Amino acid sequence: MSKQTKFLLNEDQMPKFWYNLQADLPKPMPAVLHPGTLQPVGPDDLAPLFPMALIMQEVSQEREIEIPEPVRDVFRLWRPAPLFRAHRLEKALGTPAKIYYKYEGGSPAGSHKPNTAVPQAFYNQEAGIKRLVTETGAGQWGSSLAFAGSLYGLEVEVFQVRVSYDQKPYRRALMETYGARCVASPSHETVYGRSVLAKNPNHPGSLGIAISEAVELAVQREDTKYALGSVLNHVLLHQTIIGQEAMLQMQMANDWPDVVVGCAGGGSNLAGIAFPFIGHGLRGGQKPRIVAVEPAACPTLTRGKYAYDFGDTGHMTPLTKMYTLGSQFTPPGFHAGGLRYHGMAPLVSHCKALGLLEAVAYDQVACFEAGVLFARNEGIVPAPESNHAIKGAIEEAMRCKREGKAETILFCLSGHGHFDMTSYQKYFAGELTDEHYDETELALALASLPNVPETV
Amino acid sequence: MSKQTKFLLNEDQMPKFWYNLQADLPKPMPAVLHPGTLQPVGPDDLAPLFPMALIMQEVSQEREIEIPEPVRDVFRLWRPAPLFRAHRLEKALGTPAKIYYKYEGGSPAGSHKPNTAVPQAFYNQEAGIKRLVTETGAGQWGSSLAFAGSLYGLEVEVFQVRVSYDQKPYRRALMETYGARCVASPSHETVYGRSVLAKNPNHPGSLGIAISEAVELAVQREDTKYALGSVLNHVLLHQTIIGQEAMLQMQMANDWPDVVVGCAGGGSNLAGIAFPFIGHGLRGGQKPRIVAVEPAACPTLTRGKYAYDFGDTGHMTPLTKMYTLGSQFTPPGFHAGGLRYHGMAPLVSHCKALGLLEAVAYDQVACFEAGVLFARNEGIVPAPESNHAIKGAIEEAMRCKREGKAETILFCLSGHGHFDMTSYQKYFAGELTDEHYDETELALALASLPNVPETV
Repeated sequence: MSKQTKFLLNEDQMPKFWYNLQADLPKPMPAVLHPGTLQPVGPDDLAPLFPMALIMQEVSQEREIEIPEPVRDVFRLWRPAPLFRAHRLEKALGTPAKIYYKYEGGSPAGSHKPNTAVPQAFYNQEAGIKRLVTETGAGQWGSSLAFAGSLYGLEVEVFQVRVSYDQKPYRRALMETYGARCVASPSHETVYGRSVLAKNPNHPGSLGIAISEAVELAVQREDTKYALGSVLNHVLLHQTIIGQEAMLQMQMANDWPDVVVGCAGGGSNLAGIAFPFIGHGLRGGQKPRIVAVEPAACPTLTRGKYAYDFGDTGHMTPLTKMYTLGSQFTPPGFHAGGLRYHGMAPLVSHCKALGLLEAVAYDQVACFEAGVLFARNEGIVPAPESNHAIKGAIEEAMRCKREGKAETILFCLSGHGHFDMTSYQKYFAGELTDEHYDETELALALASLPNVPETV
Repeated sequence: MSKQTKFLLNEDQMPKFWYNLQADLPKPMPAVLHPGTLQPVGPDDLAPLFPMALIMQEVSQEREIEIPEPVRDVFRLWRPAPLFRAHRLEKALGTPAKIYYKYEGGSPAGSHKPNTAVPQAFYNQEAGIKRLVTETGAGQWGSSLAFAGSLYGLEVEVFQVRVSYDQKPYRRALMETYGARCVASPSHETVYGRSVLAKNPNHPGSLGIAISEAVELAVQREDTKYALGSVLNHVLLHQTIIGQEAMLQMQMANDWPDVVVGCAGGGSNLAGIAFPFIGHGLRGGQKPRIVAVEPAACPTLTRGKYAYDFGDTGHMTPLTKMYTLGSQFTPPGFHAGGLRYHGMAPLVSHCKALGLLEAVAYDQVACFEAGVLFARNEGIVPAPESNHAIKGAIEEAMRCKREGKAETILFCLSGHGHFDMTSYQKYFAGELTDEHYDETELALALASLPNVPETV
């Protein structure tokens, strides 16, 4: 057996096209609806928010969409990303399973987010846009867009959820290093922010509120657009480069996954690693099981409802059909900030509804335990979000051990945890506990979903 | 002209030998002396501190020393490390120069330090050692040894300079994640630490004091050895893998450096990138200029004396001839903690004395300015130490612009700055100023160097 640890691609092996799963789906996605008319929205409805090139990607049914050369040129700073065989982790677990991980933490911002930040900045610059507004939780997305903006000379303004803004000043400093402006949300800079603060001046903020603030600002100015770091089809599309590279690398390893695991918040890194494998299966190739791992404290896929809902708290977005905990649901303050979103990407949700992927949920202490075991064997200290994928992969490996099966497991290590060391400190101090949402609040949030007739 | 950005080696191209510059020197290094007898120390004198395999590397005159396969196996987690062409930085500077950088921040601890931490842990484990004690400033070395210890089942205890222990809790959390124990120095755990605290209970600590504490503990126990992250010959030897890989990668790029730049604190990353090129030149090959960049606030090579001195403040180490500011000199508290050391590696100092390398010193604000320009063009946010190398490379590139010369510049980007974002925050807030040492203190420290006759 080869002891090879790292499977590297050369720059000229970097994919030239993103893979669009919509081309291979057995059933098309449900339409996106205007909340007032409940009629499907068209490209023009989205034009105040996004440049037309991204809107066209949002609705495209083409299987392959070309990655522009200037985008590939920036990707060369960290892509192709390495695929690792986790020899030491396998040994520590005593599992017959083979574990591979695709590592996305080598990007400048330390996560998979620049994979979409760079093309989004590129298409906006091409369209003559001067300024991008966005939201961020822990700051992985905000720092990635700040990085991309700095390369294309775009102003970037980030509404950061206040609790993260206060607790994670290092991510903010990273955004500022790339030249972005960072504002705590809810803020006084928007009508919606002021309305939230009027009710509760100490509101800790949420992703849903920050999205509302960013959208409000974006629609007001001609030279300004909005950018979203997950959930939307074009964002998921941009992340498919992860899985496309991983497929080439699994071939280099003369192996193929039986299971593909990813953590799921908005759904983009899961889609990135999984969609190319799902599509390969739908076209008749060997299809791995796909496992989405979410936090037990925000269990969108495992406890949510598959229904039409708003993407934001302020109800400025169109309605999309997705697994949701309700747009009024506020997840408890656990440490994987990137997974604290009430909804799940419509395309990931559609796959779940079609039986193309499974979902599990784990509590945060167990996920940190998995992350520390990983760090002590494989060296990389993972982001709290990525710890969920590791936990999922370890559970699969332990199942293989019980069943005596030498299956091949692939997971996406979406980012490093160097900005999240306070969480690890708390874990070691025994101060990290499992967070629980309020069952009554969840029931209320699910009961207040918008009323959309089944026939639509 | 090729637009290739990244020059990658495969695992099987990773060097199998470290390069020992001592084999090619025109004049041997001055002897290491026992401080009492002023007689040269032999391997046995060092045996309480280090395993014999490392002592033999310390004194070896062999050109090539084999890298053990189990060490290479761990290196595969992040090595070979990439070499980048800084196309965007070149464009931003408008220089005809070509700028390359070797990036060592992709290691699990985020810097070049694991290159020596891993073999040091390996040889200690081979020798039956159970515990390693060391010192650390900002924490790059401590976290690297903690990582290496976790892979070999060694206990690791780190004396961290108190000011960093208090100001940089995230690096400490990283050490703890790898399972190490971290103690603020000066501490109550050693005789020397207690003596320092008796005089000043609020002493901020220094690398020299932390070394004394670690050495004191190491010599007391049979199963415990000391580990040093820079300065010593074997540490510099382990870092030569950087330059050896860079030479292969410059060949891939069909190019060769006219100038090689590295930041210099203890001297190990500079030695790592530069020694293979110096040796190549000494053996008749094309020799680049070598530029060591140090902080103006701790200007060992540019303002220090080439003389015998102690490596620590408590005078527990042997005497080595090196550029030194005096072992009683306490550098001011600038942000490149890894460059706050009173001495310079004896082998680097010897090269300086032989005219094989040059040195320059820059103030910290100018270095941060260079680092931010780099981040906004190349994406990677550099460690404050690495900002010195960037500043040096930019100065060379601007000289090329003035002189209209298309020279090739190579520098070592020794680590990322994700643990150093408070420094960047201060820089952007305008709170970062250039620190200055006390001229009187420096004069006194230089005047109190040990008295070693020239004839020794």
